[in-house]
Amino acid sequence: MNMLVDGEWRTDAFESTNDDGEFERQTTPFRNRIRDDPDARFQPEAGRYHLYVCYACPWAHRTLLARSLKGLEDVISVDYVDPFRDEGGWQFTPEKAGCTEDSLYGSDYLRELYVEADPDATCRVTVPVLWDKHEETIVNNESAEILRMLDTEFEEFATSDVDLYPEGYQETVDQIIEDIYEPINNGVYRAGFAKSQDAYDEAVTELFEALDHWNETLADQRYLAGDRLTEADICMFTTLVRFDQVYHTHFMCNKQFIHQYDNLGPYLRDLYQTPGVAKTVEMSHIKEHYYTTHPDVTPTRIIAAGPDLDFEAPHDRDELPGDRPAGLVSPQ
Amino acid sequence: MNMLVDGEWRTDAFESTNDDGEFERQTTPFRNRIRDDPDARFQPEAGRYHLYVCYACPWAHRTLLARSLKGLEDVISVDYVDPFRDEGGWQFTPEKAGCTEDSLYGSDYLRELYVEADPDATCRVTVPVLWDKHEETIVNNESAEILRMLDTEFEEFATSDVDLYPEGYQETVDQIIEDIYEPINNGVYRAGFAKSQDAYDEAVTELFEALDHWNETLADQRYLAGDRLTEADICMFTTLVRFDQVYHTHFMCNKQFIHQYDNLGPYLRDLYQTPGVAKTVEMSHIKEHYYTTHPDVTPTRIIAAGPDLDFEAPHDRDELPGDRPAGLVSPQ
Repeated sequence: MNMLVDGEWRTDAFESTNDDGEFERQTTPFRNRIRDDPDARFQPEAGRYHLYVCYACPWAHRTLLARSLKGLEDVISVDYVDPFRDEGGWQFTPEKAGCTEDSLYGSDYLRELYVEADPDATCRVTVPVLWDKHEETIVNNESAEILRMLDTEFEEFATSDVDLYPEGYQETVDQIIEDIYEPINNGVYRAGFAKSQDAYDEAVTELFEALDHWNETLADQRYLAGDRLTEADICMFTTLVRFDQVYHTHFMCNKQFIHQYDNLGPYLRDLYQTPGVAKTVEMSHIKEHYYTTHPDVTPTRIIAAGPDLDFEAPHDRDELPGDRPAGLVSPQ
Repeated sequence: MNMLVDGEWRTDAFESTNDDGEFERQTTPFRNRIRDDPDARFQPEAGRYHLYVCYACPWAHRTLLARSLKGLEDVISVDYVDPFRDEGGWQFTPEKAGCTEDSLYGSDYLRELYVEADPDATCRVTVPVLWDKHEETIVNNESAEILRMLDTEFEEFATSDVDLYPEGYQETVDQIIEDIYEPINNGVYRAGFAKSQDAYDEAVTELFEALDHWNETLADQRYLAGDRLTEADICMFTTLVRFDQVYHTHFMCNKQFIHQYDNLGPYLRDLYQTPGVAKTVEMSHIKEHYYTTHPDVTPTRIIAAGPDLDFEAPHDRDELPGDRPAGLVSPQ
């Protein structure tokens, strides 16, 4: 594993499993906030902020979804790193389909931006990164916080009326995001990166118990928080959309496919078919990233054929209480 | 990989993929036949022959099924090696549930039997082994041939009337066994042991094309060769019963589960519920073997949770033309 240590790139500095073989995700160090407040250091502005993401990464995907659903494409620019991550970490390979250069600095590796933001940085180099072009620094690299900022602090610039954190739902949304993080969003990684049978068994058991629970909940309501699409659905979506093609086989989360669940399957298709969502899903990058980037898990780096899925198939979820947000325009 | 070279155990002697990354299975060297013929060197006798098998191995499983379906348990004895295969190859670990000692010689490793049979043996050490207690040698270690011998040469001793190679079906049975070998029986290994994306892609494509074909065929007929259970079904069964729990994830044969197929799923359950079959299926050995024995494929040696399957669920295949063999007695 690789990380920055005092601003130096080290390929030997990071062990992500503990003595029990359990995967432990490190916290991210850049945690400033954009706030719609004249006294704030980082205020919402059009053209000031930039996202560095990878299409493959479920955490980065959250921020792409917020940007798309809110209609912030012209307000916040974005660059896409290569889905294959080698010893040098996330890399810019503009010659590859779906990838871009670093349009701000022309960097070769994302780690250069981290050092630019903090010459003494000691941390993992992860996506998403929310970059401030004015101060030339990282505002934040924690996906749930970036999602929240894009959702709530850019109302003035948003071209859709979508509100993913609506009044009356906020406590529920926060609770669900917290509830699904450990067993589901991080659970697939805990299963896949486990180094002991016990750690794997525990992660997989918790994962499928949580999936069963939400599958049941979604029998009577269209969205996780009830009748409104919220940030909770964004957080669930980026894991579910990767599940059958990647987590199921590569991370051995193989008790059941998502498309075999009565409600989670249609729910996933409903979200996928929500205007603005499908264009953020680049399945070729998702599959390439996972299968080729974790030789500890898949040493051959061969990309599995995966199930043939049709996310555009009918879902019938529109018969449940709850409508898609009114502000959404036509499907792409 | 390990093999015997001139009777010496070598751990560096065998490369099982070619320059294109394709898995190539070696042929087996012991190819004598038991024949119900007074002039034959190896004649059918009760108590003379012995099987060395591993519950995990699909090739060995064929011979266990023939022994069980024909009712030859008291005629042919059997020992079971450990499902975990280390650098020393197949091993006898009688202390482990489901495993036995080498009841004939008390060997520690199966390779000792190969050297006993041929002090200059140069070959892989595989199961099944059909052993002759009289001559103290290996008669045959090729599963399809052992299956045929147990099926056709022991009529005098069989306690059931099952005939898995019936008159009028023989050409069809031989053709099906040949047709399913490369894409299905060996196809899962070609996918799982591939060292290049091209080799994997080709194996997986052929595998699922073949599964689709047989799924369609089985819509109108109960068994592969029509209305009779035959050796062809035995050969298909030992791959299908391992598929969802092992090949799907461990060998990345993940386009579809068998239990998701309209006809292959119920067909598999029908075979499983055929009297004499279920007791030959030791799923804990199957899962342990594959996941822990191929670090090139699953380096953590963690055993995947796999889907929860109920092979005892209804199958409704008895409404199709074809009956179970009359000779079968009560379910175990």
